[in-house]
Amino acid sequence: MKNLIINNTKIVTPLGKEAKKGNLMHDIEVIPDGCIIITEGIISYAGPMEGHPAVRPDEHYEVIDAKGNVSLPGFIDSHTHLIFGGFRPDEFEWRLKGDSYMSIMERGGGIQSTVNATREASKEELIDKAQWFVDRMSEMGVTTVEAKSGYGLDSETEIKMLDAISELADRPDQKVSIIATFLGAHAVPTEYKGHTTEYVDLIINEMLPKAKGKAKCCDVFCEKNVFELKDSRRLLEAAEAMGYSLKLHADEIVTLGGGELSAELGALSADHLLHVSDKGIQMMADAGVVATLLPLTAFALKEPYAPARKFIDAGAPVALATDLNPGSCFSGSIPLTIALACIYMNMSIEETITALTLNGAAALGMAHEIGSLEPGKRGDVIILGSDNYHILPYYVGMNCVKTTVHDGKVVTQNK
Amino acid sequence: MKNLIINNTKIVTPLGKEAKKGNLMHDIEVIPDGCIIITEGIISYAGPMEGHPAVRPDEHYEVIDAKGNVSLPGFIDSHTHLIFGGFRPDEFEWRLKGDSYMSIMERGGGIQSTVNATREASKEELIDKAQWFVDRMSEMGVTTVEAKSGYGLDSETEIKMLDAISELADRPDQKVSIIATFLGAHAVPTEYKGHTTEYVDLIINEMLPKAKGKAKCCDVFCEKNVFELKDSRRLLEAAEAMGYSLKLHADEIVTLGGGELSAELGALSADHLLHVSDKGIQMMADAGVVATLLPLTAFALKEPYAPARKFIDAGAPVALATDLNPGSCFSGSIPLTIALACIYMNMSIEETITALTLNGAAALGMAHEIGSLEPGKRGDVIILGSDNYHILPYYVGMNCVKTTVHDGKVVTQNK
Repeated sequence: MKNLIINNTKIVTPLGKEAKKGNLMHDIEVIPDGCIIITEGIISYAGPMEGHPAVRPDEHYEVIDAKGNVSLPGFIDSHTHLIFGGFRPDEFEWRLKGDSYMSIMERGGGIQSTVNATREASKEELIDKAQWFVDRMSEMGVTTVEAKSGYGLDSETEIKMLDAISELADRPDQKVSIIATFLGAHAVPTEYKGHTTEYVDLIINEMLPKAKGKAKCCDVFCEKNVFELKDSRRLLEAAEAMGYSLKLHADEIVTLGGGELSAELGALSADHLLHVSDKGIQMMADAGVVATLLPLTAFALKEPYAPARKFIDAGAPVALATDLNPGSCFSGSIPLTIALACIYMNMSIEETITALTLNGAAALGMAHEIGSLEPGKRGDVIILGSDNYHILPYYVGMNCVKTTVHDGKVVTQNK
Repeated sequence: MKNLIINNTKIVTPLGKEAKKGNLMHDIEVIPDGCIIITEGIISYAGPMEGHPAVRPDEHYEVIDAKGNVSLPGFIDSHTHLIFGGFRPDEFEWRLKGDSYMSIMERGGGIQSTVNATREASKEELIDKAQWFVDRMSEMGVTTVEAKSGYGLDSETEIKMLDAISELADRPDQKVSIIATFLGAHAVPTEYKGHTTEYVDLIINEMLPKAKGKAKCCDVFCEKNVFELKDSRRLLEAAEAMGYSLKLHADEIVTLGGGELSAELGALSADHLLHVSDKGIQMMADAGVVATLLPLTAFALKEPYAPARKFIDAGAPVALATDLNPGSCFSGSIPLTIALACIYMNMSIEETITALTLNGAAALGMAHEIGSLEPGKRGDVIILGSDNYHILPYYVGMNCVKTTVHDGKVVTQNK
């Protein structure tokens, strides 16, 4: 159980226990004829086949012959809205006809419709629905996913969402690890329209204490006319004082200064960043804040992509994630994320791999335990159907993953 | 056998036995509470549940309860290079660094490397390799696929490719129908460099007669410095005289006049068309030539998309296909094709459905037998995991197909 040997594999992995910054993201270790040994769920060896250590003969190990194919660390999707009620397919057409995200939101469509559906849904319904997406993620090689609350916008539903995440994560034989983030400040609910300060008070005084222990991180949608810099800072400072790690939706729609704020506060990550300022980029690089870029959302909204190269050239660590959500980006496609990064954001495939593994782990404060194939890390491995990792962007938008191993167990086997 | 009833389904389909032109592409029949009956592989009824005809009690029918979910005609991928030797993942990086398709081709990379690998491969290797892609296609709802020769560029290999297509198509329980196109004029082989006329002579005098009966259509890569208008015309006129239907790779890289030529010759389709002239668009519309647009290739090459709306507004029939091939577009993603059409080519989802079904059928000269859900057409049906067909572009780049029915049999069942 949780003991696994992967023989005859080309190991492809970043190395280390913290985010790779800037041009170090390109540094990928490649061991052509490698072997990975996972013991009790933890990688005990990742190195050349020749001279690999013996395992104890009295312990049972499952053995996979990778036949020369590539092994990568499991992908880490460090920004998703996995738990939600309802769907919004018709709204997608409105947007295609030219309505902006903000204008849809302003006229009561958009997020509020998901909030209503999420409030109505039972916890069990939310869990069952999310499981389907988790299964699809595992097929695409995801072994750790972040899941945010934020479609409750009242104490009861926000806690219901966090409990749903917790129960989903704890299901027996769950295929991925699920890390909860509290995002009560996802939008100002209609009940508090025009009273943002009071809503932030509610979050600080009531929701954050209740969410403590249920969520690792606290996130905020820091945006003009939503939670502006002052409210975002107040909320995040309160969260930090309670022991939360910090994340921000920053500079997605306009250049507001969320990037700068994330650096000032020492957040784990600032996310989206389509309109981040040059100053914000440099401050994030200096502070080591992970820039989590979400190209699927830009693709779906027909927006310009975030300036990945500017971040990398400034020495910042870049992560990639899907932003799976029922509104702006109903997609969890890792293959399309890779294609967009390599073709449209000018990231090399090596940088893209680092962004989806080690730097995704760092965006969750977990780079010491996941995100690379080396001893001491959790046994999260994906095996591709090819001996060449360049296949990842080349097979455009298609899944290259054959086998997903989570915590030392084969959880998904694709055809 | 091949008798199937799909109950409680929302039928969504274009209607008719020929291509839908221009704004008629938007006309989609929707029957909310529908039933589809397939008898001996042919649709015998597609209409309301209420009052559907009885089937003969002595005949066995498999029964599916679609639970209100959408049924569409099976997708038709009317332009692929399904049969090929080798892969070219490393070349993908060259292109990302700025090399053009033509420049890679001119320095002996590109297509010639696939030609070499295809010449070396056995027919059986080509078939086994293609089967893997066919299985993925079926998962995405494809029930008919066109497959081109064109990586042989000598008589022996071109015929080997066509025989591989034929044997692949004839495999017992094959999941899709496979229609062969002869594309000996895909490139000028190195042996004939500078002697294009002689190579066209070889095609006309030797290959076309040998390919007769093995391929339905004859195609040509009509492009500057490859097969220009004069050679393309000479080749296609000879093919037509031998009974082939005609297709063209037209105006992909520069504005050459392939669109106009396709209209003059009454081709089934002209394909790619990124740089088609306004005159070419109007001539194709007037002649009823199907404009087969291949957005995955434009996406992968970072080129502008073909002018879908100009074609539709001019009254031309538009089809969409993947262009799956190992070079310019190694992708068979129907979901991404749909996303690109709706988000980046301003096609409505209804037009996109018509383009992937009835108009794809017309691009193969088969609109009288496939491409819609109505009596007399072949029993090729896909059932989505939703009761709302707007989910197709909304679930960006992800597969919405649950069940694929080909020729009255369930051939693929997704999770």
